[in-house]
Amino acid sequence: MKLVSLLGATGSIGVQTLDVIASHPEQFKLSAMSVGKNIETAEKIISEFKPEICAVQNEEDAKKLRTAVGPSTKIVSGMAGLIEAAVSTDSSVVVNAVIGSVGLLPTLKAIEAKKTIALANKETLVTAGHLVMEHAKKHNVTVLPVDSEHSAIYQCLNGEDTNRVEKLILTASGGSFRDKSRDELKNVTVQEALNHPNWSMGAKITIDSATMMNKGLEVIEAHWLFSFDYSKIDVILHKESIIHSMVEFVDTSIIAHLGQPDMRVPIQYALTYPDRLELVKGKRLNLWEVGQLHFQKMDYDRFRCLKLAFDAGIAGGLMPTVLNAANEKAVELFLNGHITFLEIEEMIERAMLELSNVSTPDLETIQETDTRTRIFVESLLSKGR
Amino acid sequence: MKLVSLLGATGSIGVQTLDVIASHPEQFKLSAMSVGKNIETAEKIISEFKPEICAVQNEEDAKKLRTAVGPSTKIVSGMAGLIEAAVSTDSSVVVNAVIGSVGLLPTLKAIEAKKTIALANKETLVTAGHLVMEHAKKHNVTVLPVDSEHSAIYQCLNGEDTNRVEKLILTASGGSFRDKSRDELKNVTVQEALNHPNWSMGAKITIDSATMMNKGLEVIEAHWLFSFDYSKIDVILHKESIIHSMVEFVDTSIIAHLGQPDMRVPIQYALTYPDRLELVKGKRLNLWEVGQLHFQKMDYDRFRCLKLAFDAGIAGGLMPTVLNAANEKAVELFLNGHITFLEIEEMIERAMLELSNVSTPDLETIQETDTRTRIFVESLLSKGR
Repeated sequence: MKLVSLLGATGSIGVQTLDVIASHPEQFKLSAMSVGKNIETAEKIISEFKPEICAVQNEEDAKKLRTAVGPSTKIVSGMAGLIEAAVSTDSSVVVNAVIGSVGLLPTLKAIEAKKTIALANKETLVTAGHLVMEHAKKHNVTVLPVDSEHSAIYQCLNGEDTNRVEKLILTASGGSFRDKSRDELKNVTVQEALNHPNWSMGAKITIDSATMMNKGLEVIEAHWLFSFDYSKIDVILHKESIIHSMVEFVDTSIIAHLGQPDMRVPIQYALTYPDRLELVKGKRLNLWEVGQLHFQKMDYDRFRCLKLAFDAGIAGGLMPTVLNAANEKAVELFLNGHITFLEIEEMIERAMLELSNVSTPDLETIQETDTRTRIFVESLLSKGR
Repeated sequence: MKLVSLLGATGSIGVQTLDVIASHPEQFKLSAMSVGKNIETAEKIISEFKPEICAVQNEEDAKKLRTAVGPSTKIVSGMAGLIEAAVSTDSSVVVNAVIGSVGLLPTLKAIEAKKTIALANKETLVTAGHLVMEHAKKHNVTVLPVDSEHSAIYQCLNGEDTNRVEKLILTASGGSFRDKSRDELKNVTVQEALNHPNWSMGAKITIDSATMMNKGLEVIEAHWLFSFDYSKIDVILHKESIIHSMVEFVDTSIIAHLGQPDMRVPIQYALTYPDRLELVKGKRLNLWEVGQLHFQKMDYDRFRCLKLAFDAGIAGGLMPTVLNAANEKAVELFLNGHITFLEIEEMIERAMLELSNVSTPDLETIQETDTRTRIFVESLLSKGR
């Protein structure tokens, strides 16, 4: 029986993690969880999964929840609570599915507590990859990816010597605007951008798919997770998203991971690794039903956000933090109707040009830069750009 | 430095094995070899690779070769010579690339000598899979596949628990007549059949590709190599032959091996396993250059030879021997213009219906059945079918 701490239980990854846990009651038990402000859902999850501890964002909600649930689940709050949920129980794995940079500190603490990290929180690696991976190495802790591309690569590397890898090849569907030219992108609406062809996801990540920034963040994640130089990471357009990613070896062999778009696969793999278990109610992939798979060379002029992400990754230091914070702010402005689609990349580029870099920054500098970047992007708006 | 015994040095696999050995002089050395009757080529190979021993088919050729080459290479002949080439040197791996059932005995002897077997000789597994794999298990010897589909599966299984496999999926290009209906197959010529779209191979195997018997034999090989029931082996039509084969796991993940059609990849992998080395002058696969991959459900009525192979495999015992011998004879008759393309499968089916089966046959019974089957198929011809 594997005990699981789940940070971010009510988000998309959180809910699917609970589904995986519930589908294998002999293998998994939820021992700790966290939610943000959705305490109604938290109450339901606690009643079904009976974790030892649940962290919520603020103390007011914690009080309400304490009244609602029995004494068998301890309710804690704030960052201290989130860390307690990450480290206090006998869980062997912490699934970090919180959104944003709030996921970083609990990850570092869970590593110190020698727990395997199943990481769905992009920001943790994008903004502080050097801190997290160094910490994991020092404490001899495994960091397992929980998203389809990196899990695919992890699976393709299974049993292989990473010194024999020629290239990691991430596949990109191209998002909602795959077939639009840059000219056509000028006037796209928020509604059009939210219409992703293959995956049903949250608004932020759907926009990131349309700008290809999502793939850019994944490139930076891959760099840290697998310790590969950016010159060994490639992206290919593959509109069906059936091949989730690939690894090319020095003997020209390419090992690929294929499957249906079902996030429970990488989630469950992170929980069962290096073993696998049946995916309950999983839909099998029949390639003859799909019929055709398409591939196109990535166009870095067309998808400038991807180029910016490579630039930020190669520059290193604070640049991925600037990239990520500028992108989050710009996407927020786009979703609220304040800027156009193409202004997202313009604002990110401006931020990367104007904010200064330092190499191997500490946590404080990263967080400060994150804040400073958001303020800078906001200021671009008030200046009328 | 790994010493290699190469049985069948002048055939297509043999020549490419020599190429792999020559391209990594620090890693590999040819210590023993065998040829059939092509002693001119043998002389060249001996002069370049300087093996300790070379086996030829008959003593007359052996005498000629002894005169032609220096005393540093021992020349032997016949089955005894072939076995000596397999077992006598300090080689750690025996590449069995001979054609036909002559490869069986040297394989068994090499297993007894604790040498890793790199097996390109289909007949060995198809007709005597139970003997070979039992023998390998008993002597704790690894049997590595040297053809693109099985090497692909072997690579996809790397680091995985075979108990978690749902299905092995072999890909089939469909051969020269992929797009022809059964009606159109009635009048195809030998020349048309020899025109394979993706791979340049010998006449026999090209015809086997057109009838899909090649895939059928591979299904039986896969059954023995990987110890999977036939219900867990599937075949899918994939005309580009870019995905060389796949493994589906219980969590719905599919791991696939992709690459250019270059037999040196599986040959070299068998020599380097579990490591990999650079494929010298290997052409890398860019999926965006390929553009599209196509898949179709296998039609077992259209490709009856594949159905017959599954039937023979499931029946077990002598049936795979009957299938293989009947096919070899029928293909020979087709290549010589004695029968039509569709009569190949008819003759195989007749042989499977009329020749009796026994379970777990010994070597003698297998060889006797092989001979009996060929005589039976020949007799069908003289009877005017």
